[in-house]
Amino acid sequence: MSLLIRSSYLSQSHIQPRNSKPSSHTNQTPLKLVFLSSFNHNPLVSLVNKRNPTMQPPTFPPSMTVKSSLIDPDGGELVELMVSESEIKLKKAESETMPKVKLTKIDLEWVHVISEGWASPLKGFMREDEYLQSLHFNSLRLKDGSLVNMSLPIVLAIDDDTKEQIGVSKNVALVSPQGDVIGSLRSVEIYKHNKEERIARTWGTTSPGLPYVEEHITPSGNWLIGGDLEIFQPIKYNDGLDHYRLSPKQLRKEFDNRQADAVFAFQLRNPVHNGHALLMNDTRKRLLEMGYKNPILLLHPLGGFTKADDVPLDVRMEQHSKVLEDGVLDPETTIVSIFPSPMHYAGPTEVQWHAKARINAGANFYIVGRDPAGMGHPTEKRDLYDPDHGKKVLSMAPGLEKLNILPFRVAAYDTVEKKMAFFDPSRAKEFLFISGTKMRTYARTGESPPDGFMCPSGWNVLVKYYESLQESDESSKQQQAVV
Amino acid sequence: MSLLIRSSYLSQSHIQPRNSKPSSHTNQTPLKLVFLSSFNHNPLVSLVNKRNPTMQPPTFPPSMTVKSSLIDPDGGELVELMVSESEIKLKKAESETMPKVKLTKIDLEWVHVISEGWASPLKGFMREDEYLQSLHFNSLRLKDGSLVNMSLPIVLAIDDDTKEQIGVSKNVALVSPQGDVIGSLRSVEIYKHNKEERIARTWGTTSPGLPYVEEHITPSGNWLIGGDLEIFQPIKYNDGLDHYRLSPKQLRKEFDNRQADAVFAFQLRNPVHNGHALLMNDTRKRLLEMGYKNPILLLHPLGGFTKADDVPLDVRMEQHSKVLEDGVLDPETTIVSIFPSPMHYAGPTEVQWHAKARINAGANFYIVGRDPAGMGHPTEKRDLYDPDHGKKVLSMAPGLEKLNILPFRVAAYDTVEKKMAFFDPSRAKEFLFISGTKMRTYARTGESPPDGFMCPSGWNVLVKYYESLQESDESSKQQQAVV
Repeated sequence: MSLLIRSSYLSQSHIQPRNSKPSSHTNQTPLKLVFLSSFNHNPLVSLVNKRNPTMQPPTFPPSMTVKSSLIDPDGGELVELMVSESEIKLKKAESETMPKVKLTKIDLEWVHVISEGWASPLKGFMREDEYLQSLHFNSLRLKDGSLVNMSLPIVLAIDDDTKEQIGVSKNVALVSPQGDVIGSLRSVEIYKHNKEERIARTWGTTSPGLPYVEEHITPSGNWLIGGDLEIFQPIKYNDGLDHYRLSPKQLRKEFDNRQADAVFAFQLRNPVHNGHALLMNDTRKRLLEMGYKNPILLLHPLGGFTKADDVPLDVRMEQHSKVLEDGVLDPETTIVSIFPSPMHYAGPTEVQWHAKARINAGANFYIVGRDPAGMGHPTEKRDLYDPDHGKKVLSMAPGLEKLNILPFRVAAYDTVEKKMAFFDPSRAKEFLFISGTKMRTYARTGESPPDGFMCPSGWNVLVKYYESLQESDESSKQQQAVV
Repeated sequence: MSLLIRSSYLSQSHIQPRNSKPSSHTNQTPLKLVFLSSFNHNPLVSLVNKRNPTMQPPTFPPSMTVKSSLIDPDGGELVELMVSESEIKLKKAESETMPKVKLTKIDLEWVHVISEGWASPLKGFMREDEYLQSLHFNSLRLKDGSLVNMSLPIVLAIDDDTKEQIGVSKNVALVSPQGDVIGSLRSVEIYKHNKEERIARTWGTTSPGLPYVEEHITPSGNWLIGGDLEIFQPIKYNDGLDHYRLSPKQLRKEFDNRQADAVFAFQLRNPVHNGHALLMNDTRKRLLEMGYKNPILLLHPLGGFTKADDVPLDVRMEQHSKVLEDGVLDPETTIVSIFPSPMHYAGPTEVQWHAKARINAGANFYIVGRDPAGMGHPTEKRDLYDPDHGKKVLSMAPGLEKLNILPFRVAAYDTVEKKMAFFDPSRAKEFLFISGTKMRTYARTGESPPDGFMCPSGWNVLVKYYESLQESDESSKQQQAVV
């Protein structure tokens, strides 16, 4: 998979967020930039151009201190599923009497996701109606008839024995991989786990070798259990990174504290190179030009399950912090936080989830690049997804109308200017494309990437990580030799 | 696959069409039956209860002759893609100069479907935006932001050579399997035919042995071509059945002629047995009880591609006409017509297409049974789809809100009453379930089904068909022996 970056909203004046709301602190006439998606040329398809009533530019005098007003979470209210302090004792005692459902590490990541409201308005693992809507329509219908986006089935699998133990019980207790009862699922519904259909409709392939499928779905049970989730305390990992794991509520508070009048989210599961940084800094510049006074970047690496050859979370977080220390990104206008979701690598289906979850954290702009959430086809020599489908599907997805989707131009290494720059087709030969695979090869072999690809201290984090991998490889080889 | 029939709206007073509009010719207070779908128990899911403004009960005095006002087609206007008489000569001459695209028999069935407006508001084979929306969301967004249902990708595949011949041409001519230029596709867009993804997302499996896939997709080209369709004359098959192939416009006219104030459609691709008839007659009775004065049944067998072991169209049509001759269904209140679509056997995805197309023909009630558009899994010993998913997905599908979905109770052979009857679980042992496979076995072996399963003259049609099959089998065996 390549790390190419695109930004078309810079050069293409016809690209515009669907509910762009030019703003101004002053009494000047607001700028009237109009963005239109470049790929919605079809007469049947037109993006709804609703104004977003909750992300207004401030109209107060600049000297006044007020809070910003962020985009509404899906369903109107942020879901939070922590049992209140006064009820915990009773609820814990009650849960001891319930049939138990043992969670895997990935199940627990979903408990984390649901309980903090990333999947608002979802209040627990999906019941069958929600599951079917997610699978077939990538959206859920609310009571008022409106749709919210929900592209990934967020489900909990149980095996035959567990199903039998549950019997006709209405409620079940959830047990962490460490053996602690961490909460419960109430008014449960148990239905068949049609794995083949779930995989086919989520990934668009049933090819062997899909990381999330092999790690999580194939070994799981033949039943799904849905219900209303309650947990006894926030999910913590005690890995030294919990302070990075801000909930949607905490993020919204932080955006308010910083008086953000626009929040733009950047999803990634890779180290940040200067092409990413160019893009993020450029987005901020454009938002300022649109009239926003204080656009805040949510740099939001994915923190749940990733495939084995991805750079681990702790290394990425160290690399990210070097990028901010080095001033490649401005700490004043950037919030780095961990998005607790596991990774599906489900391309156009998953990118909707990535975007939707950020609405709930208060982001009203979402940056989308080439082949988001994609990977190589597990058995064929090609990308699993058409690299353009992610941004196309995202721009048309039901329930994401209030989010401004920002597709972007390719960035590559400009060998003349010796820096990452937006690709200029008129001098194509002067650009060098550095894929993720190539970047990892550089780091693994100790070769330096071209100057200006990544800040040196950030690069150093990667080099050290790959050195440590080799050392542990060698040490295990030596151990094997000794044995 | 079983032929079990369900009707729950009879006994379950909480099941109701989403926009039920009780009606009355008189000044009596309209009945206030309220149907609610039994499977929408999820708090996140609620069916939109919009009133349908275009299917009002007549308010004129009963003596007056007026036309009924049928449900609006999707997109507001029925698509018709015939070139006008005055333009035909010019357009035909023009098409001779265009690059040619050769159609298969199934492609031609889709040309038929699109050109008559069954897929309104679709105006041709899908371009990529429509294709992606269909694949991911089972719906298309209109310019006004509303959604219409569109669950099946309606696409035209071309091979590498044809793509090369088309080059940068804007328009292409369409050539029938017989070699005639029958129309054109304009402002075309060519994009990749990702067969694996298309199959996985449409069928929920990529298992070998899917009839439509093996017959039509696997042998097709690696590119899809979308554009605006125009045809020179209505598609005819000259198989003695064209008089049964009424277009949506013709059907609407016929419903108007009969002053229908409700139209209920029944989709099938099998012979009509008395269980089907019970259900259709019962639906009419319930609609009358709801206050409708003249509900008309659209008995609408599928006429396009079906799998090899299905009963062929001509035999089914002959069987259907016997059923009406015998008075099992009332010819006064029934219209038998052929639905020209090919069959996908794509279960919950396809049933939406079956329902949506009937909106365009004027139907505002749609009957759904067990496992609609389903079949056995091609490689495993089980149904390909959960038999309940079809009706569940249908009841929640975006763009079908204005259609009243009528799920129904199982009908089976009552061995005491000696007739097809709604299944009564309290005396389960007295009911005999006759599957499609079993019915075919009866007909093939010359064994009679129980009295009252099907009208004798209709049954005779099937017996004769299977006899003729055996004769041709034996004659070909004899020929092989001679050779």
